[in-house]
Amino acid sequence: MAKRSTKKHWVGFDLGGTKMLAVVFDADCKVVGKRRRRTKGQDGVEAGVARIVATIDEALTDAKLTRDAVAGIGIGCPGPLDLDKGILLDTPNLGWRDVPLRDTLQDTFGCPAFIMNDVDSGVYGEFRFGAAQGAHCAVGVFPGTGIGGGCVYEGKLIRSKTGSAFEIGHMQAVPDGPLCGCGRTGCLEAVASRLAIASAAAVAAYRGEAPHLLKEAGMDVSNIRSGTLARAIKAGDQAVEHIVRRAARLIGSVVGDVVNLMAPDVVVLGGGLVEAMPKLIVDEVRLAARERTMPVFRKAFDVRAAALGDDASVLGAAAWAEAQVGSGKA
Amino acid sequence: MAKRSTKKHWVGFDLGGTKMLAVVFDADCKVVGKRRRRTKGQDGVEAGVARIVATIDEALTDAKLTRDAVAGIGIGCPGPLDLDKGILLDTPNLGWRDVPLRDTLQDTFGCPAFIMNDVDSGVYGEFRFGAAQGAHCAVGVFPGTGIGGGCVYEGKLIRSKTGSAFEIGHMQAVPDGPLCGCGRTGCLEAVASRLAIASAAAVAAYRGEAPHLLKEAGMDVSNIRSGTLARAIKAGDQAVEHIVRRAARLIGSVVGDVVNLMAPDVVVLGGGLVEAMPKLIVDEVRLAARERTMPVFRKAFDVRAAALGDDASVLGAAAWAEAQVGSGKA
Repeated sequence: MAKRSTKKHWVGFDLGGTKMLAVVFDADCKVVGKRRRRTKGQDGVEAGVARIVATIDEALTDAKLTRDAVAGIGIGCPGPLDLDKGILLDTPNLGWRDVPLRDTLQDTFGCPAFIMNDVDSGVYGEFRFGAAQGAHCAVGVFPGTGIGGGCVYEGKLIRSKTGSAFEIGHMQAVPDGPLCGCGRTGCLEAVASRLAIASAAAVAAYRGEAPHLLKEAGMDVSNIRSGTLARAIKAGDQAVEHIVRRAARLIGSVVGDVVNLMAPDVVVLGGGLVEAMPKLIVDEVRLAARERTMPVFRKAFDVRAAALGDDASVLGAAAWAEAQVGSGKA
Repeated sequence: MAKRSTKKHWVGFDLGGTKMLAVVFDADCKVVGKRRRRTKGQDGVEAGVARIVATIDEALTDAKLTRDAVAGIGIGCPGPLDLDKGILLDTPNLGWRDVPLRDTLQDTFGCPAFIMNDVDSGVYGEFRFGAAQGAHCAVGVFPGTGIGGGCVYEGKLIRSKTGSAFEIGHMQAVPDGPLCGCGRTGCLEAVASRLAIASAAAVAAYRGEAPHLLKEAGMDVSNIRSGTLARAIKAGDQAVEHIVRRAARLIGSVVGDVVNLMAPDVVVLGGGLVEAMPKLIVDEVRLAARERTMPVFRKAFDVRAAALGDDASVLGAAAWAEAQVGSGKA
């Protein structure tokens, strides 16, 4: 990171439903301090924001720094945001509404702060430091409980007029498919997220077609995690492999249509499911995406596993803050 | 247009398969000269390029100007392009290959020139002067013989690393649908272009379900033009109306998925089909797009008919040249 002054450190923050993470980076993007805490959203907004501030303070202490060393803060957040006003509109799992987090952090730490969608911060992290470095256009797809998507185009995150955009998980994958959490049917997220895979695997277990999965996790979809699925496949549960491959092909098919629009050079796949089975999922997505892509774009893009794991979001958030300050948007 | 110098006029050029059009604009974007000619692609590249130069010269003469008045030239072209090298790679209907048109025009007229995809120039024209003025993100869809698409995001055209992108016409509309010209199946273009509509209408005519259309145009798909379809519907051919509405719904459905990604504020529909039946098509596309769009984006976009007709492309090409010169990309 290029900024040089007495304030030369950047804070990346990841606000999750169950845990929060603050990381302090020096001007060369090296980690110099870190602090993780449980989020405890149920304690309410005021306690939650105090917890965010305390976590950043503790990461600074870990780095042997004080608040006046911070040049900027980037925060990856779940849920709909007002990016220009810096407000968390409605934070799922936390029950927070209309939280002016950006201004609170700016006032508290005396430096520019930026909120952003947590998938966007992850994609931006991979673009700046990971699997999509130097891309003209990088598309990120993160299958988890849902399926998040983001796109860095010519160095900038694609966003809507007021909030985040690039909702790949809500593009149509199967006409008249199953009900999605968004209220419509057949969205990619409804047929290819970890939750959709887990529900299909539970049915296979019920039918006696996934004995290893049944033994390890039973038929409760909340117990069937990415690691469970990977271990069941390795142990020989062919039905589970079939289910995961089908989901990956559906992701690939939708990715192919995204390529027809954005013509990215790199598509990055991340999240727990991909981390547990990178080769299986990346290969299947690549194949299906190429089939669905116009000949002119087919050879111009690659599909890759994310390189930074959980660090992508904090790295991306800090780097985004730095880029905004650098371009005078603070 | 803001540029002020002795060179203060801009040329917009539209290179079509059958005709070419050069328009000279003054610094305030007013038309001051114009010349239209047949393209005659079969005469070969050299004659064709000479014809382009002559057409621009004649438009300048019409404007009572000489070559040294031109600050920049923008050319909307069909077929794949190398945007950075300024080369027409393969021009359908003309049979031209690897034509370094940009450099030829720069050398001839002594000013910067820019080639661009002709759909992109149309979308950019609507963004600057037409139905999408001031949009954060404008998506354009132009159903004709094929279905062209383009997107202006924060003032810039979405493009691939080397050429144009945003191929809405080749996103999947119908799984396992009919064969498309691109070699795949079920592309939007294969089920909702004027050609696809004409072929379905010809079948209806054969079955005796489209008597007015049959009487006017027969069953030859090349005779069934946009105006033919509009007149048949007006005269009472319900089967034709059904076919056009179905195509518009398919366009809307794909547009809905594009909205899930790009969250545009405006979707502009243009081309002959829309000009012949603006209300029918725009209403149907809007309805289907809203159904296919995430709740959060549903009220944030509008679908509109293009406002500039055939002028969109030349206006857009000239304005794009001006914007590139202004940003120092010449």
